[in-house]
Amino acid sequence: MATVEELKLRVRELENELIKCKQKQCAMEDAHSQALNRPKIDKMSAEVVDSNPYSRLMALKRMGIVDDYEKIRTFTVAVVGVGGVGSVTAEMLTRCGIGKLLLFDYDKVELANMNRLFFQPHQAGLSKVEAAEHTLRNINPDVSFETHNYNITTMENFTHFMDRISQGGLEEGKPVDLVLSCVDNFEARMAINTACNELGQIWMESGVSENAVSGHIQLIIPGETACFACAPPLVVAANIDEKTLKREGVCAASLPTTMGVVAGLLVQNVLKYLLKFGTVSYYLGYNAMQDFFPSMAMKANPQCNDRYCRRQQEEYKKKEAERPKVEVVEEEEEVVHEDNEWGIELVSEVTDAELQAASGTVPDLPEGITVAYTIPAEEPTSGDTVEETEQSLEDLMAQMRKL
Amino acid sequence: MATVEELKLRVRELENELIKCKQKQCAMEDAHSQALNRPKIDKMSAEVVDSNPYSRLMALKRMGIVDDYEKIRTFTVAVVGVGGVGSVTAEMLTRCGIGKLLLFDYDKVELANMNRLFFQPHQAGLSKVEAAEHTLRNINPDVSFETHNYNITTMENFTHFMDRISQGGLEEGKPVDLVLSCVDNFEARMAINTACNELGQIWMESGVSENAVSGHIQLIIPGETACFACAPPLVVAANIDEKTLKREGVCAASLPTTMGVVAGLLVQNVLKYLLKFGTVSYYLGYNAMQDFFPSMAMKANPQCNDRYCRRQQEEYKKKEAERPKVEVVEEEEEVVHEDNEWGIELVSEVTDAELQAASGTVPDLPEGITVAYTIPAEEPTSGDTVEETEQSLEDLMAQMRKL
Repeated sequence: MATVEELKLRVRELENELIKCKQKQCAMEDAHSQALNRPKIDKMSAEVVDSNPYSRLMALKRMGIVDDYEKIRTFTVAVVGVGGVGSVTAEMLTRCGIGKLLLFDYDKVELANMNRLFFQPHQAGLSKVEAAEHTLRNINPDVSFETHNYNITTMENFTHFMDRISQGGLEEGKPVDLVLSCVDNFEARMAINTACNELGQIWMESGVSENAVSGHIQLIIPGETACFACAPPLVVAANIDEKTLKREGVCAASLPTTMGVVAGLLVQNVLKYLLKFGTVSYYLGYNAMQDFFPSMAMKANPQCNDRYCRRQQEEYKKKEAERPKVEVVEEEEEVVHEDNEWGIELVSEVTDAELQAASGTVPDLPEGITVAYTIPAEEPTSGDTVEETEQSLEDLMAQMRKL
Repeated sequence: MATVEELKLRVRELENELIKCKQKQCAMEDAHSQALNRPKIDKMSAEVVDSNPYSRLMALKRMGIVDDYEKIRTFTVAVVGVGGVGSVTAEMLTRCGIGKLLLFDYDKVELANMNRLFFQPHQAGLSKVEAAEHTLRNINPDVSFETHNYNITTMENFTHFMDRISQGGLEEGKPVDLVLSCVDNFEARMAINTACNELGQIWMESGVSENAVSGHIQLIIPGETACFACAPPLVVAANIDEKTLKREGVCAASLPTTMGVVAGLLVQNVLKYLLKFGTVSYYLGYNAMQDFFPSMAMKANPQCNDRYCRRQQEEYKKKEAERPKVEVVEEEEEVVHEDNEWGIELVSEVTDAELQAASGTVPDLPEGITVAYTIPAEEPTSGDTVEETEQSLEDLMAQMRKL
């Protein structure tokens, strides 16, 4: 039987041990939260001190590259697809101090993604948008994030997606400044194209080939440049859908190098477009086997199957006609310059054999231009996707044959 | 005064609380260690399952791009400079499953580095090599790491650096397979050049301009292609040294985009070189303002100031002469193809005005070729650097004037 003295001693021991345990727990929590936070910064400073995360970006003004770098904080960009290209794209924009990012993806992080930059093994199992937001907030707490863990190609989600890109700007109710397509399949590209045509939303497309050694970026200004439905040779997409891949036990190749280069070229184009410096590229390809970078631009197709694209073209024509002549001189550069000054010609991102096998029909195209992607051999089996309300694959094939 | 019963109750309460506290502590520690580890993988598998981090890389074989991807595990690469380009370079190689990485840097992580990929705010204050090793081991525990937290340009460290690149291969005593220069100053580039010429070590150079909107990569095969001392126009380096910058309160600009693209092009070239696919680039530039990618190759200069370069050239000539004629047909492609098939011409990474201000003398060069970098306006003040034992800046200037 314990005496009062013994029990008192035991209480004191336990109290001390508990205090120590709680102290250690606090220290662990502190270290954890310190690791997750730097204080927010109200105003970007150009001061050259080690503690200023914006000094090297603000130096772009002093170097005569960008007139007003701080303006980056006023922009909102939507990134659709947070995989090999989209995650690095989001990280670059976050580190550049973009105002707000909207992230859309419905996939989970897997160890099979570890051959590309950004995600880490301990994030396996988390949704990509959740894992990305956590990492990106930690890197730059000054950026606002809005994430959507869903597939934009189903009807209900598509409506919500349209709503968010037209209302989800830095100031709620204003549209985003730019939509970036970093998806890996045909349907999602068509959904983004449909939404942006209807809203008149400027966007950029990106893609990497199934063999991992080529890719491209493309700027699409509804009504002005070719949209995804206007110009099959450049935009008829489809890397094999990730879901199909998993089902069939085949697997597209990917490399952190190609995806990093494509993300870098994409975000560079975004910075040039938003901050108005350099020449914004309309189409830039990357062929890693030969280190070859085809470049071109294409006007919108008046016979485009997408009725919103045709409507945007009419509005663009009206605006162009109304513009006073004096201002035309100060115009941005012409969209179409098919004879590019470096004599560069386009190369295919797929082999002719792959193309035949995948699409059955090779479209008749001007010399030097070949398709960038193959069309999926079979129609998508999921019935409720968005692009089918606008145009079918058959329509697209018919359109390609007409070209 | 407490009774025995009261004290017993208190003991039970405290014991329960302590157990809870310890359980929570264990859970935190578990989460922490889980976050840091995935098990090592003995053999790369091509199996398409979500848990296989190599499935997308092994698919390069099925896609017909790479004959033997597993061979990546037998190679060792040294990365000198773990900043904006070097850290992403190391991450890409780690995710690709390289056998061993040697990392050299003497700098610390600062918040001012957060506008580039890779490092995170909570790492501020850590040495770059230590922080990088921690993150990279976590990403891929199958890679071996060796880190050196020192400046390679001091005499003592230079000797150690030479020793490690000639002995620090995957099998100790064997040389590394490739050295990558990702440094930001002239002296360090000259030190790497000197070491690689003496050892006959193949290496690749990389660089990004002070205004953040251009960069390049270059393959240097001692005796065969121009070394860093052979060809001032392409290689006369110097971004302002980071230390000088900090002292003088000025600051070079940098962008995650440009650095990500340069790292991607560099590691792509490394993969093509090591795994023997595609065309390895001898020189590839990136001009972000125009999305323009100049490409070329240069032979070694028989009048090079570096005596080890001249010795390597003689050995190369001897080897070429001894090679049976039959094999010449199966040779890799010729190094020099000055009339490149795309009619591309080189552009400067600096303006003419910057060049004049920085170097005083503009070298006389063949049409279409201009210097990639400016030479530092003043001589480096640190006396004990390596390149001075081989050649001075004056020698280099004299050499440039001769050209």
